[in-house]
Amino acid sequence: MIKTDILIIGAGPTGLFTVFEAGLLKLKCHLIDALPQPGGQCAEIYPKKPIYDIPAYPEVLAGDLIDNLMEQIKAFEPGFTLGERAETIEKQDDGSFVVTTNKGTKHHAPVVAIAGGLGSFEPRKPPIQGIENYEDRGVEYMIKDPEIYREKKVVIAGGGDSALDWSIYLANVAGEVNLIHRRNEFRGALDSVEKVEELSKLGRINLITPAEVIGIKGKGKVRGVEIKRQSEEPYILECDHFIPLFGLAPKLGPIANWGLEIEKNAIKVNNALDYQTNIPGIYAIGDVNTYPGKLKLILCGFHEATLMCQSAYQRIHPDKKYVMKYTTVSGVSGFDGSRKEAEKAVVKKIG
Amino acid sequence: MIKTDILIIGAGPTGLFTVFEAGLLKLKCHLIDALPQPGGQCAEIYPKKPIYDIPAYPEVLAGDLIDNLMEQIKAFEPGFTLGERAETIEKQDDGSFVVTTNKGTKHHAPVVAIAGGLGSFEPRKPPIQGIENYEDRGVEYMIKDPEIYREKKVVIAGGGDSALDWSIYLANVAGEVNLIHRRNEFRGALDSVEKVEELSKLGRINLITPAEVIGIKGKGKVRGVEIKRQSEEPYILECDHFIPLFGLAPKLGPIANWGLEIEKNAIKVNNALDYQTNIPGIYAIGDVNTYPGKLKLILCGFHEATLMCQSAYQRIHPDKKYVMKYTTVSGVSGFDGSRKEAEKAVVKKIG
Ligand SMILES: Cc1cc2nc3c(=O)[nH]c(=O)nc-3n(C[C@H](O)[C@H](O)[C@H](O)COP(=O)(O)OP(=O)(O)OC[C@H]3O[C@@H](n4cnc5c(N)ncnc54)[C@H](O)[C@@H]3O)c2cc1C
Ligand SMILES: Cc1cc2nc3c(=O)[nH]c(=O)nc-3n(C[C@H](O)[C@H](O)[C@H](O)COP(=O)(O)OP(=O)(O)OC[C@H]3O[C@@H](n4cnc5c(N)ncnc54)[C@H](O)[C@@H]3O)c2cc1C
Repeated sequence: MIKTDILIIGAGPTGLFTVFEAGLLKLKCHLIDALPQPGGQCAEIYPKKPIYDIPAYPEVLAGDLIDNLMEQIKAFEPGFTLGERAETIEKQDDGSFVVTTNKGTKHHAPVVAIAGGLGSFEPRKPPIQGIENYEDRGVEYMIKDPEIYREKKVVIAGGGDSALDWSIYLANVAGEVNLIHRRNEFRGALDSVEKVEELSKLGRINLITPAEVIGIKGKGKVRGVEIKRQSEEPYILECDHFIPLFGLAPKLGPIANWGLEIEKNAIKVNNALDYQTNIPGIYAIGDVNTYPGKLKLILCGFHEATLMCQSAYQRIHPDKKYVMKYTTVSGVSGFDGSRKEAEKAVVKKIG
Repeated sequence: MIKTDILIIGAGPTGLFTVFEAGLLKLKCHLIDALPQPGGQCAEIYPKKPIYDIPAYPEVLAGDLIDNLMEQIKAFEPGFTLGERAETIEKQDDGSFVVTTNKGTKHHAPVVAIAGGLGSFEPRKPPIQGIENYEDRGVEYMIKDPEIYREKKVVIAGGGDSALDWSIYLANVAGEVNLIHRRNEFRGALDSVEKVEELSKLGRINLITPAEVIGIKGKGKVRGVEIKRQSEEPYILECDHFIPLFGLAPKLGPIANWGLEIEKNAIKVNNALDYQTNIPGIYAIGDVNTYPGKLKLILCGFHEATLMCQSAYQRIHPDKKYVMKYTTVSGVSGFDGSRKEAEKAVVKKIG
């Protein structure tokens, strides 16, 4: 059982910044995310695109924004349960909560902050009959550990950035990389498209277009895929892994069944006070919540996280009175023993 | 009469970021500030100190934060009335407002956003009898245009960063610089203290410590100051300007009399919706407002400004329906004709 002060569901920008604000209050955080990496939509959907409305950043790549947030919270040593979806929540007699993931990992905390964005990211699956029988047995919809493909024969399907970028990456790792797409045209960053073209000419990526995977072969584990090229007869391509990368789409998912008040596919919160839900001790911040005038913007999540942490502090320490201090004045003390502090003004006698 | 869409009182971080969010909605802004430069507390009180809780900035100097905000809003071409205090507000028959400064400058707008922080910064004045008769006649409490001191004899009083930094600066401009402080010890950045020491040895700054200015001489304009050094007899030092730099302290000031609901020296707003005050069309954002759970933090001002602008848009264009768009997706079009936009994904045929 993982124990923490604030259990954060969702490691997007909102969840990450919560770690910082909680840390200032000496509260520990642990984050659960269905994705294999932190960063939410920024990391999964548009890491290489610039954002223009982060305050005091005239321009910042979404991926860099996440890197900067990770750097900012490092000293507060957050815990992570990645690649797992928070599935159930149980209120304990003492008012605290136990959250269990789809893989059975259990987390215990007095406060739960749902920073689940548009929901947990779930893969778009190709309509291949019986594909679910091969999941985690040679079929993977996202790549968590590229090392499992070393010297293996892989088939990647898709025509966007993920399919392009992973084909390039695995060309150096796997024994054989096949990239299948139902059109001749790919849609991605210019340098990725060009790199795939180059590797294809060098014979390091085997490009099969326009074509589709219509079946999977193998007993209990993937041994090959059935490929159909337009009017030709389908044929079997031997492989160890089939990786359909058709994008991930967020689904509010299991959280919708936790007894929280839901409106417009989002969780209603008390925006006049502390972004608490109808269940005391459970807060909802960032894209996942709704209230009159709500804007699904990153900078709003930062504010909501900050106010929420003050309320969580009161809940965890009902007897203590916390007086907010400026970071400039009091500095920042990390849990790792580090300390950042502004230089004090020098008092010096002259003459 | 200066005309704009949103008239912002206070050019601190909150007021500045309002220009950006309004600009995205194609609304023009004009800012009034009592200080000669934008940046509010950050620029006036601690420009060289690091802040640690600006989201995605593990560390940023307060002065750099302001520079970045100025850069971010540049394309939206905000107007500025600096060095003037907003003094009175009059509601017009059509629901719009006219705001007049202490120097008589008039501004007209359908929406007023008060981002006045802790109030307009007013100088701490030394207790010298009759000093008010010399104000702007040789006595200046803040330096707006250093050129007026060229080849002049100046007396600066104070022992902090402002007194040190301006003495250094004016050593290259004025005919004579005298720095008077009632102690031998100065309190400031190490390099400033050392620089003053050096210039004093070179005879370019005449250091008079411990001493105090106890009187001003001159008919209708400063001709000299009366200086008292401990037990010695007071003496007259001839000069053209006397510049007491004892710091600026914010005072809510005239805004307190505008008929707005005030609580704890701040303006009550509707935080459950749009940060509007009890007078429709007047909003209050950033440090100047109060509501349950309010935190006087820079990141909160950013959020409040953003929600406020959406509401202001509805007020200015009651018939239009605005659909929020991500900057990453729609880009940013400045009023100066500039345009920032994310690179589009390339669609390219391979092979
Ligand atoms: C193309 C695009 C461009 C954008 N441009 C801008 C912009 O310019 N400016 C701006 O401010 N915003 C922009 N946004 C929106 C911005 O990305 C979101 O506001 C922001 O990501 C919300 O952050 P969050 O942390 O609340 O949620 P998210 O980033 O959505 O993160 C939520 C995380 O929670 C996880 N999660 C949810 N449920 C569970 C569960 N049950 N178990 C485990 N994990 C779960 C998800 O997997 C996800 O990683 C853009 C979005 C897109 C898609
Ligand atoms: C030493 C110090 C350290 C700090 N550290 C941090 C930190 O680490 N993190 C953090 O988030 N915050 C910190 N703060 C607080 C932060 O600076 C404020 O929250 C922020 O400046 C508020 O911004 P604002 O734009 O709302 O108001 P302000 O910055 O106060 O700006 C308001 C402006 O309005 C002007 N004004 C007011 N009334 C009038 C009028 N009638 N006419 C004309 N002009 C007017 C004032 O002159 C002023 O320039 C710190 C503050 C101090 C003093």
